[in-house]
Amino acid sequence: MTTLETQGLAAKNAERVLAAAGTAKKNAALEAIARSLAARQEEILSANALDLAEARNSGMRPALQDRLALDEGRIRGIVEGVRQVCALPDPIGTVTKMDQRPNGLVIGKRRVPLGVIGIIYEARPNVTVDAAALCLKSGNSVLLRGGREAFHSNKALISVMRDALEHVGLPRDCIALVEDTSRDSANELMHLTAYLDVLIPRGGTGLIRSVVENARVPVIQTGVGVCHVYVHAQADLDMAARILYNAKCSRPSVCNAAECLLVDRAVARDFLPMAWQLLQSRNVAIRGCPLTRDILGDFVTPASPADWDTEFGDYILAVKVVSGFEEAVDFISAHGTGHSEAIVTRDYFAAQRFLDTVDAAAVYVNASTRFTDGFEFGLGAEIGISTQKMHARGPMGLEELTSSKYIIYGTGQTR
Amino acid sequence: MTTLETQGLAAKNAERVLAAAGTAKKNAALEAIARSLAARQEEILSANALDLAEARNSGMRPALQDRLALDEGRIRGIVEGVRQVCALPDPIGTVTKMDQRPNGLVIGKRRVPLGVIGIIYEARPNVTVDAAALCLKSGNSVLLRGGREAFHSNKALISVMRDALEHVGLPRDCIALVEDTSRDSANELMHLTAYLDVLIPRGGTGLIRSVVENARVPVIQTGVGVCHVYVHAQADLDMAARILYNAKCSRPSVCNAAECLLVDRAVARDFLPMAWQLLQSRNVAIRGCPLTRDILGDFVTPASPADWDTEFGDYILAVKVVSGFEEAVDFISAHGTGHSEAIVTRDYFAAQRFLDTVDAAAVYVNASTRFTDGFEFGLGAEIGISTQKMHARGPMGLEELTSSKYIIYGTGQTR
Repeated sequence: MTTLETQGLAAKNAERVLAAAGTAKKNAALEAIARSLAARQEEILSANALDLAEARNSGMRPALQDRLALDEGRIRGIVEGVRQVCALPDPIGTVTKMDQRPNGLVIGKRRVPLGVIGIIYEARPNVTVDAAALCLKSGNSVLLRGGREAFHSNKALISVMRDALEHVGLPRDCIALVEDTSRDSANELMHLTAYLDVLIPRGGTGLIRSVVENARVPVIQTGVGVCHVYVHAQADLDMAARILYNAKCSRPSVCNAAECLLVDRAVARDFLPMAWQLLQSRNVAIRGCPLTRDILGDFVTPASPADWDTEFGDYILAVKVVSGFEEAVDFISAHGTGHSEAIVTRDYFAAQRFLDTVDAAAVYVNASTRFTDGFEFGLGAEIGISTQKMHARGPMGLEELTSSKYIIYGTGQTR
Repeated sequence: MTTLETQGLAAKNAERVLAAAGTAKKNAALEAIARSLAARQEEILSANALDLAEARNSGMRPALQDRLALDEGRIRGIVEGVRQVCALPDPIGTVTKMDQRPNGLVIGKRRVPLGVIGIIYEARPNVTVDAAALCLKSGNSVLLRGGREAFHSNKALISVMRDALEHVGLPRDCIALVEDTSRDSANELMHLTAYLDVLIPRGGTGLIRSVVENARVPVIQTGVGVCHVYVHAQADLDMAARILYNAKCSRPSVCNAAECLLVDRAVARDFLPMAWQLLQSRNVAIRGCPLTRDILGDFVTPASPADWDTEFGDYILAVKVVSGFEEAVDFISAHGTGHSEAIVTRDYFAAQRFLDTVDAAAVYVNASTRFTDGFEFGLGAEIGISTQKMHARGPMGLEELTSSKYIIYGTGQTR
């Protein structure tokens, strides 16, 4: 067996114990993890310092170095995150729809863990703990394959969590690190069908596309967001400008940020200068259609066809003037990624039709796309935002990490 | 564009109309389909006669010819099936979990169609109508790729259904036949990610394995059932014999039939002769472990390792004597396909532990595995039985053919 197969088998065996462990035991493990992360923070920070030194030597961009860095405050945040997961209701064991059938069979649908979850992700070490805590609470074992840049940090964090599991009497192998951070290990993980029940990629477009295209293990596709704000002819233009500014500028690097503005021709000459007033305070670069350039001026870069399909993740906004509702909705259908889409309008029928017609995980009327998030939706912590339609769609909390089984109580029934 | 891409695009466009059509319109279409199938049965029977003639010429086994054959009675059954789907509640549009968040956003989760569903299946023409009716009611377009053997029958059935769609003002392309029945068309369908939201294979183990291993489109794996009946030391042996007999013999060709008996050593010498009494009335062939042969005699064929993993689909039963509960559960974990598993016991704790420990779509205490079925579970008609954990598990009715989207009503909220 390869190292990964050995880890997969160990995770599968550990999961059988974890699935039977019950809420009290799982919460005790989460509490032990929270305590140990705080108590052993020196060890974690030293490991993180190694990663940071390597990052500086290899010339990593300062913004990425910042995402990688831990300090006392960030560790407090991570610990707080674990305690929040601990406080969430346990999704496992709930029986829905239990009923007695005419033949006397009592049939119920019980929520059970998915099994062994693989996660492939990039540099941020807080993901390591978030993901492990969510998997643990939902009764799943997890194989974490983080990036090379965070290797020492991840190793320290996972070692602390495995010790905590052992301390409360759960198998260490409920949480495991894939130490090989090469492309080979990612590939092997994508084909580990004997042990992995699902694979969740978290990271940039390239990573997610590679996993979706190559995996044989079932995948939950997360997070690529080419989100639109559509300013309808009947919009409150002040509200529209505030929503657009928020959707673009409050955190441009995340998947629920807006990448493209669509504006009805009837209001474009009024709206675009108003929007520009706000956007220029953050030096947002505009890539516009010809009419946008005509209205705003030559400082607008002409949009290339690729711009309509790009998740910029930066202070860049594509802008297109459309003839009306139909063109806007068709454009979103052609270029959206099924993540979050918003209309700004006063028109009741336009609002309802937008909700009905647009096919995305989250469809907004008169609000910023930035709300697509587990906490904001009231689901608690999330493991990612699904942009696919199967299994789960939108922010995925604990329930989305479960499956079900039918349990049937009989008294000798035959058919 | 290839023929299949053209059909995929047409199906996708049709689905946008269907998704907005509402329950009354969809029910009118189902009623029109039911009426037309009855009214045009001569046309359907003539087409079926062509398939049957080809089947006889090519030397198809009589049992398979029987599966392929239609007559007035079977068409009545098909029409009745469509009316049953019409009578089921429409899953689309239901809003679950709508709530107002502290910031005033009103967030609801609305059930929506999956989109375009592909179905690859084998000879039985009734599947063509069943699947089309379920997809239509749940707002999905469907591309049906049936087997070559049923080509003329499928073409006639689908032509009747498309005419009925047009008659009520819905797009014909909501239901489409993939006319190319070669392996190439199956392969192309498996890679039609631009248009297909999910692919469901219905048929034998070989077909399902091929789709699961080769598809890039998300797949729902259905129906392979290596199901066990485990007779515990504390079983009511009469009940156990009746349940085993029913699970094996009432319809051996289906996926919820039992393929393997596990019996505790403590009761094997009492139970196996009793079971044999019943099984021999149907000439069931036994493939047994050494102890089974020792107890029942040399007429028992020695089980080969492959027998423990085989879905016989016939009057053949693998039999293994086990040392007790742990060995039985480990054996099921190693050889089961996660479909349906049953324990027969009087022991409360053994029953509960079996329900907790066995990882399958349906886990039974003191009842036959044959009940795993949409109608028996009270879900209405089903499109298949999922043996995977993602998206849906067990019998899949209308709800399992849906996804969800979050709809958010705001009043200008930003974050």
